[in-house]
Amino acid sequence: MAALFVALVHYPVADRNGRIVTSAITSLDLHDIARSARTYGAAAFFVVHPVPDQREFAARVLDHWKTGNGRQFDSRRQEALELVRVVTNLDEAIVEAQRMAGARPLIVYTSARADGGIGYAEMRERLERADSAPVMLLFGTGFGMAPAMLERADFALAPVLGPGEYNHLSVRAAAGIILDRLRGH
Amino acid sequence: MAALFVALVHYPVADRNGRIVTSAITSLDLHDIARSARTYGAAAFFVVHPVPDQREFAARVLDHWKTGNGRQFDSRRQEALELVRVVTNLDEAIVEAQRMAGARPLIVYTSARADGGIGYAEMRERLERADSAPVMLLFGTGFGMAPAMLERADFALAPVLGPGEYNHLSVRAAAGIILDRLRGH
Repeated sequence: MAALFVALVHYPVADRNGRIVTSAITSLDLHDIARSARTYGAAAFFVVHPVPDQREFAARVLDHWKTGNGRQFDSRRQEALELVRVVTNLDEAIVEAQRMAGARPLIVYTSARADGGIGYAEMRERLERADSAPVMLLFGTGFGMAPAMLERADFALAPVLGPGEYNHLSVRAAAGIILDRLRGH
Repeated sequence: MAALFVALVHYPVADRNGRIVTSAITSLDLHDIARSARTYGAAAFFVVHPVPDQREFAARVLDHWKTGNGRQFDSRRQEALELVRVVTNLDEAIVEAQRMAGARPLIVYTSARADGGIGYAEMRERLERADSAPVMLLFGTGFGMAPAMLERADFALAPVLGPGEYNHLSVRAAAGIILDRLRGH
């Protein structure tokens, strides 16, 4: 099975008016997406943020759960948070994923609006082939990744849809759902 | 298609030591699960809490987004939060669901440990049949619903699994994943 990586992007992302901004790290994103990443067998979860203070905030959240009281409170949470790597930009994540998996990962863009993206069955098959390249799924915060990130990607995944038109999932739910579609049993 | 309801249970739930407790309402649970419920066409999302102060807290969160600044900030969020009904206990949720759907809902228990629960394909088929009874999915907060809630249920759903043993998803991710398995496209 191909190695799978998850990356949560805080820059460049859109705000509610479509302006390109840097979003703040949300503690619960780290917890929820780490637990989903662990459940679906991801090799690492990259938290991507260009601002040193924000990366330090993420490191403090992780330290709390990796040591001392947090660890005693819930060891399963710590097991998930061990997957987190806090990095400055996508290139740093790619270098680290390549070091871990032994090959450069294909970059997969996810978005609620990625019409024309490849389907889940096709992506799942690719991941299951023994000879496949590693894959890194990019998730955007704020109101979604800047379209410029699409240019860094090898593929876009089709949007997650329900029976209707509305598909404004939280990134915490969307990451879980997409991992389940690609690796669920 | 059968009417689908979602209920988030704050009592009785387990704490990390398996003691039965009442958990506090988390604002982000309301947002995330409402957005997933709307995406997958649920008819209502019941937030079940026995403590009046906690129900008032939930009502304040909803008011902020239904009126004034919150609404202007993100109308799609408001559209999701319109699904929320804050109730005291499961019976109140059942009565309201019956009033909305015209028939008493079947109660479905979800848990990371519900071994022997029915499978997702079977449940999905049931929901797709035109003559099916409405269904209410119960999700637990804290460290999961008390086993006593299983006795209130008509079915338990099989746990969500990835490729390995670890399946400690957040309730926000689990609700999204289960709705996607039952109603995703």
